[in-house]
Amino acid sequence: MGILERLDSGEVVVGDGSFLFTLEKRGFVKAGLWTPEAVVEHPSAVRQLHTEFLRAGADVLQTFTFSATEDNMESKWEAVNAAACDLAQEVAGGGDALVAGGICQTSLYKYHKDETRIKNIFRLQLEVFARKHVDFLIAEYFEHVEEAVWAVEVLREVGAPVAVTMCIGPKGDMHDVTPGECAVKLARAGADIIGVNCRFGPQTSLQTMKLMKEGLRDAGLQAHLMVQCLGFHTPDCGKGGFVDLPEYPFGLEPRVATRWDIQKYAREAYNLGVRYIGGCCGFEPYHIRAIAEELAPERGFLPPASEKHGGWGSGLDMHTKPWIRARARREYWENLLPASGRPFCPSLSKPDA
Amino acid sequence: MGILERLDSGEVVVGDGSFLFTLEKRGFVKAGLWTPEAVVEHPSAVRQLHTEFLRAGADVLQTFTFSATEDNMESKWEAVNAAACDLAQEVAGGGDALVAGGICQTSLYKYHKDETRIKNIFRLQLEVFARKHVDFLIAEYFEHVEEAVWAVEVLREVGAPVAVTMCIGPKGDMHDVTPGECAVKLARAGADIIGVNCRFGPQTSLQTMKLMKEGLRDAGLQAHLMVQCLGFHTPDCGKGGFVDLPEYPFGLEPRVATRWDIQKYAREAYNLGVRYIGGCCGFEPYHIRAIAEELAPERGFLPPASEKHGGWGSGLDMHTKPWIRARARREYWENLLPASGRPFCPSLSKPDA
Amino acid sequence: MGILERLDSGEVVVGDGSFLFTLEKRGFVKAGLWTPEAVVEHPSAVRQLHTEFLRAGADVLQTFTFSATEDNMESKWEAVNAAACDLAQEVAGGGDALVAGGICQTSLYKYHKDETRIKNIFRLQLEVFARKHVDFLIAEYFEHVEEAVWAVEVLREVGAPVAVTMCIGPKGDMHDVTPGECAVKLARAGADIIGVNCRFGPQTSLQTMKLMKEGLRDAGLQAHLMVQCLGFHTPDCGKGGFVDLPEYPFGLEPRVATRWDIQKYAREAYNLGVRYIGGCCGFEPYHIRAIAEELAPERGFLPPASEKHGGWGSGLDMHTKPWIRARARREYWENLLPASGRPFCPSLSKPDA
Amino acid sequence: MGILERLDSGEVVVGDGSFLFTLEKRGFVKAGLWTPEAVVEHPSAVRQLHTEFLRAGADVLQTFTFSATEDNMESKWEAVNAAACDLAQEVAGGGDALVAGGICQTSLYKYHKDETRIKNIFRLQLEVFARKHVDFLIAEYFEHVEEAVWAVEVLREVGAPVAVTMCIGPKGDMHDVTPGECAVKLARAGADIIGVNCRFGPQTSLQTMKLMKEGLRDAGLQAHLMVQCLGFHTPDCGKGGFVDLPEYPFGLEPRVATRWDIQKYAREAYNLGVRYIGGCCGFEPYHIRAIAEELAPERGFLPPASEKHGGWGSGLDMHTKPWIRARARREYWENLLPASGRPFCPSLSKPDA
Repeated sequence: MGILERLDSGEVVVGDGSFLFTLEKRGFVKAGLWTPEAVVEHPSAVRQLHTEFLRAGADVLQTFTFSATEDNMESKWEAVNAAACDLAQEVAGGGDALVAGGICQTSLYKYHKDETRIKNIFRLQLEVFARKHVDFLIAEYFEHVEEAVWAVEVLREVGAPVAVTMCIGPKGDMHDVTPGECAVKLARAGADIIGVNCRFGPQTSLQTMKLMKEGLRDAGLQAHLMVQCLGFHTPDCGKGGFVDLPEYPFGLEPRVATRWDIQKYAREAYNLGVRYIGGCCGFEPYHIRAIAEELAPERGFLPPASEKHGGWGSGLDMHTKPWIRARARREYWENLLPASGRPFCPSLSKPDA
Repeated sequence: MGILERLDSGEVVVGDGSFLFTLEKRGFVKAGLWTPEAVVEHPSAVRQLHTEFLRAGADVLQTFTFSATEDNMESKWEAVNAAACDLAQEVAGGGDALVAGGICQTSLYKYHKDETRIKNIFRLQLEVFARKHVDFLIAEYFEHVEEAVWAVEVLREVGAPVAVTMCIGPKGDMHDVTPGECAVKLARAGADIIGVNCRFGPQTSLQTMKLMKEGLRDAGLQAHLMVQCLGFHTPDCGKGGFVDLPEYPFGLEPRVATRWDIQKYAREAYNLGVRYIGGCCGFEPYHIRAIAEELAPERGFLPPASEKHGGWGSGLDMHTKPWIRARARREYWENLLPASGRPFCPSLSKPDA
Repeated sequence: MGILERLDSGEVVVGDGSFLFTLEKRGFVKAGLWTPEAVVEHPSAVRQLHTEFLRAGADVLQTFTFSATEDNMESKWEAVNAAACDLAQEVAGGGDALVAGGICQTSLYKYHKDETRIKNIFRLQLEVFARKHVDFLIAEYFEHVEEAVWAVEVLREVGAPVAVTMCIGPKGDMHDVTPGECAVKLARAGADIIGVNCRFGPQTSLQTMKLMKEGLRDAGLQAHLMVQCLGFHTPDCGKGGFVDLPEYPFGLEPRVATRWDIQKYAREAYNLGVRYIGGCCGFEPYHIRAIAEELAPERGFLPPASEKHGGWGSGLDMHTKPWIRARARREYWENLLPASGRPFCPSLSKPDA
Repeated sequence: MGILERLDSGEVVVGDGSFLFTLEKRGFVKAGLWTPEAVVEHPSAVRQLHTEFLRAGADVLQTFTFSATEDNMESKWEAVNAAACDLAQEVAGGGDALVAGGICQTSLYKYHKDETRIKNIFRLQLEVFARKHVDFLIAEYFEHVEEAVWAVEVLREVGAPVAVTMCIGPKGDMHDVTPGECAVKLARAGADIIGVNCRFGPQTSLQTMKLMKEGLRDAGLQAHLMVQCLGFHTPDCGKGGFVDLPEYPFGLEPRVATRWDIQKYAREAYNLGVRYIGGCCGFEPYHIRAIAEELAPERGFLPPASEKHGGWGSGLDMHTKPWIRARARREYWENLLPASGRPFCPSLSKPDA
């Protein structure tokens, strides 16, 4: 079944997680540039990560093509996009997963709002995706709805289903378009699936989704909802999201979500009506597994990686220390307030902008 | 050069990092049991992690044989030990790294201090290591020095160099033997390399190393020093270490060390005279890279993975936002006090025991 | 000069601080009831506190008549109101201070919105104030603007100037009337001075003041602005303010504002156009002094209690320890992030309602 | 009954609290100098504070003569000491309280360890105390045991009972004399009551008391034990105590102990065998009341100020909001982890020295 058949029939679709941040920590991506040349330089590392997300329960494998445009990667861009498709499709073939070709905002837009030129950049990546017959398309990480609309317009040219997510928070896009208005514009541009990814943590992203949902409802529009938030807690973000926090990108560790935080996020997203639920920067395979485990009752099955995971800590029930055995239950982990081990650090930061 | 030649000549030896915790998050190890059957079930995942640590600068690849004894793994134990050797040796062959066969404390010792039986358990694993010609041996994660001494005695039978690390803190072993006394006993038993691994964070582990060093000095003994601490901050641990913290093992995220914390740890370990510096649970490949980068002046080279890492955040110097560019310097990251993003959580916990 | 002459001429008026909380800690008021029988039972304690606020720079001494109505204090009410006037006037006579008679919301309103009966309650207290010739009147601590309007209507009957403050935050009154609308209603009812007191900390109260100011401006109305916030930091309050925080009222210590926090508050209030600046629960005499010291350049003089206070810590400049001498400067105290000494406690709480 | 009769018969003696810090906040003492000229300049403020401590349950009123020596106060010193005695005795006459004349370490000792000169300084104050017939003597706030011994030797000349407290922590005095050794030296010098005051918070001070007690026991000596700790939490202190913390003295607010913290302290002090329990800097009247309330079962009565205090929050049991009524119980306040309301601040500080 294609992505729309799944969503139309009411299924929960589990997305995948973080490539850039995860592969940076594994040694294959450089922070700052954040380009995906690993698909050609270290294909086994990328293949391994796709495998882990698939095993964790992801229904969709996104091609690792973030920023893989000519302006960012020069002549390498085409080989990177092609290799990324091959890797995702190779791994997806081992499961029931769909492959989504992914594009994102251009670095041009900020300086030259040249619709033709920007659309052409999108079109180049799209031609590779079309040639490789990916299952559907995702335009993600847009901070301006105008550029996101252009992306949707281009992606629709192929005929595959189109998802689009913006990297905005509850205060809206960089030109002060509210989340509700953004959603309406994207739906009117023809996007099938609408939502947010990156830049804000679970709770903040769900607030934005709520506003998008209300915007669509008020406009009498219909679209599937999608959320792929950060794996970091960022209640202290400003409008620009986590990149403006002083900890970005090399001091975010204390903010990493636990698996229990993510189960809560998955449940709340579901209750809000979101049916495409995944993650972005900071989402490791076990975070994706947490989504799949939380929504196993709705989906009817556990992901393969749950063979190595006892739900709610149940794997601890044989521990020799009784106080550790006592942790083998849902109530324990749901109520834990985990300490940072950092008494000289604050709990919140002021964004730099 | 073998491990002792390297250490004798004054070289810094960089160890590798976490297998159990890292592969648990990737979906291949089950918390609670913490056994390494992944070497036969998912060899590519293990191979990938060895590769990442090698690339990050590790001079030693440990066989993933933690707890791989008959009493923990039944009949699978032998195949697991053999496969673990093969995987480590296959990856090490791609670099200049040594392979160390690793054993750890038995679950028996607590109940039956039966020296003969316990030594036989060690001997079984050791026979596989000998057959596979590993470069040297590591006995690690001992909470009682008596059992650690037995391990050293058995490992010495092969003739390869022997390293031994205890999982104790500054308060000593579970029978109240001080770190200094432990070190003396282990040196007298014939260990070439002595230190601590696991259970305590960087700062606490270095305190223990200081006490071990002083114990050896006061006894007029010589041994190489080795530290492989947690990648978690645990200033609030009691004698039992991180397993007694309420966050163990599924809520430790806020405690994860940053790369800068690890550079500090590497420098302090070096200044203390420790020359074998690696990590244990929670140490991801980028943490190992941080050791290799901090000690690059002493070692004379950067690890391969540094091609994807600008020292002290220098990769941010081209960022379009000036306040993010301003983070591309050592002073910034050295002084950052990273926020947890969790204002409803405390900064320290009380251990359960 | 009367209160309106002072405000009309552009003077800053410094209010006084906390009676209930301060005298509870001194042993003369009972938490829960929060009634001011201390004026008859322990007049010297009340006189002393008035003296301290006067000495700290207060231009106004409020009668300690909070909740001193017949329904709360039975037959004692009249003697309490009279004695409270006498005490405030006795102390004010020693300076240039004005005495304000104070009333607050009734406990009846929540159950019976009986305008006649409630106005009669107000009128009883008012008769004592009129007989004692207080300088002006303050109606404070109203959570419903309707009742506050009734209070203003009654107070205007006397002919003395009328100030009115609500105990609301930026989300408005308990019936969801916004701060801007509240301010407009109060101005239209004839209040001369309008603002907020109690229930929210300095930063939150200033946000509310900003909304009140904008409401008045948008309606084309004029009124003097007044703020008397808590001496506690309460960024985590819900609509109901600090009474809903789990720490209320016996665990608020870690939230107490420093003198430097209050200097910042005074400056920001001034910059916002507020000219009547005081405090409510948690405001000790040194907090009032901090307002008077911060605004000394505008007022042209320091308060008497500054003879015992070096501005910005300058009293430390003779200390024998050089690192303590180094604290004798503004930059030090302005930038200090004071630790709680409580690593097992969170930094924020969830309100109970 | 005199102080020794009370202690010998097993009674608990409740001390009084903070004068310098409390009167600084009320506007009558200048931080930095910390001299008690308020006894002549503002006697009613001092009388009021004595009254509050008496009412809170103090069995002893200390003369407010801290640092009231010739070298600190020039010619004023004698009038100050005499007035301080008069004020304490006047208030004590209204109850059953004893008056203790208090001296403290000299500023000379650090520079000139001139025993004769220092003893003469002590003797001058002592002559006033003798003339005024105070009930007993307290030598307090000594950081060097040698000087404390000199003080004891001088105080014994009068014939009144002698208490002596040092301002040290578990690491001992500034010359590295351990708490146990200090206690032994003080007992041998003839002190009747021995302990610590100031500079460290409740938990740390009780650790020091434990060491003093053990020192006396090991030396086969007997003395009554006394503790008058800070009303601030200072787990992060170094050897020099709270003066070295960056928050000293104008940013200590978040560290202030709650009444429940003090009840715990009183109980633990009692269980440790300490029978003279009071407070030092930061101890407000309600903290002293908390000692008296916690030990009311042992003492057989509540202090006068408890008429304005429901034990364990019971005064809230009539509140109209059910969630506030739910706070009217011991379990609630004993387990509360109070938030600081300061998410941008750390929970611990690094001492400046």
